[in-house]
Amino acid sequence: MFENKDNATTPISALGEFGLIDHLTKHFKIQHTTTVKGIGDDAAVIAAEKNTQLVVTTDMLVEGVHFDLSYMPLKHLGYKAVMVNLSDVYAMNATAKQITVSVAISNRFPVEAMEELYAGIQTAAELYKIDVIGGDTTSSTSGLIISVTALGEAEAKKITYRSGAKENDLLVVTGDLGAAYLGLQVLEREKEVFKVNPNAQPDLEKYSYLVERQLKPEARRDIPGLLAELEVQPTAMIDISDGLSSEIIHICKSSMVGCNLYEDKIPLDPQVISTCEEFNMDSTTIALSGGEDYELLFTVATEDFPKIKGNPHLSVIGHITKENEGMHLITRANTKIELIARGWNALEDEADG
Amino acid sequence: MFENKDNATTPISALGEFGLIDHLTKHFKIQHTTTVKGIGDDAAVIAAEKNTQLVVTTDMLVEGVHFDLSYMPLKHLGYKAVMVNLSDVYAMNATAKQITVSVAISNRFPVEAMEELYAGIQTAAELYKIDVIGGDTTSSTSGLIISVTALGEAEAKKITYRSGAKENDLLVVTGDLGAAYLGLQVLEREKEVFKVNPNAQPDLEKYSYLVERQLKPEARRDIPGLLAELEVQPTAMIDISDGLSSEIIHICKSSMVGCNLYEDKIPLDPQVISTCEEFNMDSTTIALSGGEDYELLFTVATEDFPKIKGNPHLSVIGHITKENEGMHLITRANTKIELIARGWNALEDEADG
Repeated sequence: MFENKDNATTPISALGEFGLIDHLTKHFKIQHTTTVKGIGDDAAVIAAEKNTQLVVTTDMLVEGVHFDLSYMPLKHLGYKAVMVNLSDVYAMNATAKQITVSVAISNRFPVEAMEELYAGIQTAAELYKIDVIGGDTTSSTSGLIISVTALGEAEAKKITYRSGAKENDLLVVTGDLGAAYLGLQVLEREKEVFKVNPNAQPDLEKYSYLVERQLKPEARRDIPGLLAELEVQPTAMIDISDGLSSEIIHICKSSMVGCNLYEDKIPLDPQVISTCEEFNMDSTTIALSGGEDYELLFTVATEDFPKIKGNPHLSVIGHITKENEGMHLITRANTKIELIARGWNALEDEADG
Repeated sequence: MFENKDNATTPISALGEFGLIDHLTKHFKIQHTTTVKGIGDDAAVIAAEKNTQLVVTTDMLVEGVHFDLSYMPLKHLGYKAVMVNLSDVYAMNATAKQITVSVAISNRFPVEAMEELYAGIQTAAELYKIDVIGGDTTSSTSGLIISVTALGEAEAKKITYRSGAKENDLLVVTGDLGAAYLGLQVLEREKEVFKVNPNAQPDLEKYSYLVERQLKPEARRDIPGLLAELEVQPTAMIDISDGLSSEIIHICKSSMVGCNLYEDKIPLDPQVISTCEEFNMDSTTIALSGGEDYELLFTVATEDFPKIKGNPHLSVIGHITKENEGMHLITRANTKIELIARGWNALEDEADG
């Protein structure tokens, strides 16, 4: 659905900077009445709703570091750049409302490539009800860089920090983990095969979920609403961008608590399990350190357990302990291992080495 | 004042991504009570003052496009990256309160270089009373890229758009124009001299104002306050980043009006006049198309003229006409020339060619 079949190439210089911005953003519609002014002045203007606070987050994606255009279509990249930022807004238990998008591009990209990138941004904005209120388009001496800032809002009492987890709270995760990292492994492998034999037809059917989680991640926009509906106020929350163990450690350190995480409770998709077997990888390690899943990790008081129990979107994976008890993984064999933050970078180094 | 005499080089990998962010931002203090949460969670949290609206703007600076590290010290670059964004907030007649800063850097920069960059950001934040509330530090496959998003606020009725200029309004500019562009020319010339003779000692004394305007521009934080004090509500406002003519045209097109701009009223510093003579350049062309001055251009109703008359910060340079009368420059010789937007890019091409 996201491929560009068109081979037209218009140099960006044919439009100029202002012309290019106008061209790329003219289809963007303002959806929120609180967006007083979007693109087209020195700054955008937002009117906050009464009794709400504003959340602001920013993330930069760099070609060759965060993405590889040899298997990441530009439309997906635009979509993903938005998701990465919205995920941080939802992790505050807030509603995302606006984004700004800055792009630096080298002249090797024609206008049509920028159209693809912005089509992905627009798709994300429409599906997630986000106003694109500003940005910057500039040339780059080499690669493609996208910087997105996302704004959201929530009642002050609903905003959830990393620092509120309390002893005995339950550790809860949305969705399932590890698929995005495995999707990247599948794509990297296909790239190597393609280098050796450019006529090879990749068969990604059995990895479809993994590849989709890597190329077209979805932020958990539904979760703040679901929690409100269930009348659950999480005590702490974070999004899973770097891998489960790293995020748990962030919550524990910010909240000055410890935790026990149960290996057998970590939610895994069947494709993650089968692909880990095929690739001879340990699925728990992948879930702990894989990253880019953009699920949410949060803690809730034990008395909220009946409200979340059995919910198909939520898995209880552990509980919070006293700080001096440390942070541990309880394995299937019932041994206790200290949790360490390795993150996907470390995993990558190991996979390479 | 802004030089790094220290030759220490610590590779960024020695600190890691989180370590680097902590290290660079640990001295940043929160100055505004409305900044509920700064760096350290998934997103920053802001509580808007009552009856205010929020303004948001973003700009990206790219090495080799917007700056040249051979004469731009990193501390100045950090400072300038903040100014460029604050200028847009002030151009809305608003108070700047917060920024986020994202930086992509190649491994050729040691930690000490990043410290210089962040020292410039911190200096700007302290002087302009800005909270640095978030950001992202990532590696880059080549150059240095800085993306800043600035947030500000103002009462809704004070926020000034580009679109409010009315027939007979006066066209007013702050400070003086053209110096930043000439400063760039001086620095480019010195770079060429240095290439031929690395032992040559540059004598920039007579160009001190020009070079400072280029390397350490100041945004007009004072102007929204001054206008409030004078009880002047501008009808339209914009900041001068691309050159006076381009900005006047933005206001006229957004407001659907025309204008007459008087050549002899354009404020020029004596160094601009003398250096234009030395370089055999036309000072009016430089002021019209030079860019990067970060002064403010605004329109006021004629009845406000007594309030601004004789103010040393403000020059009345023309007036607004009906749209069908067009946009014109009235020269010293009293001829009428159509205003065209060329911007410093076009000027650059000409200077190169």
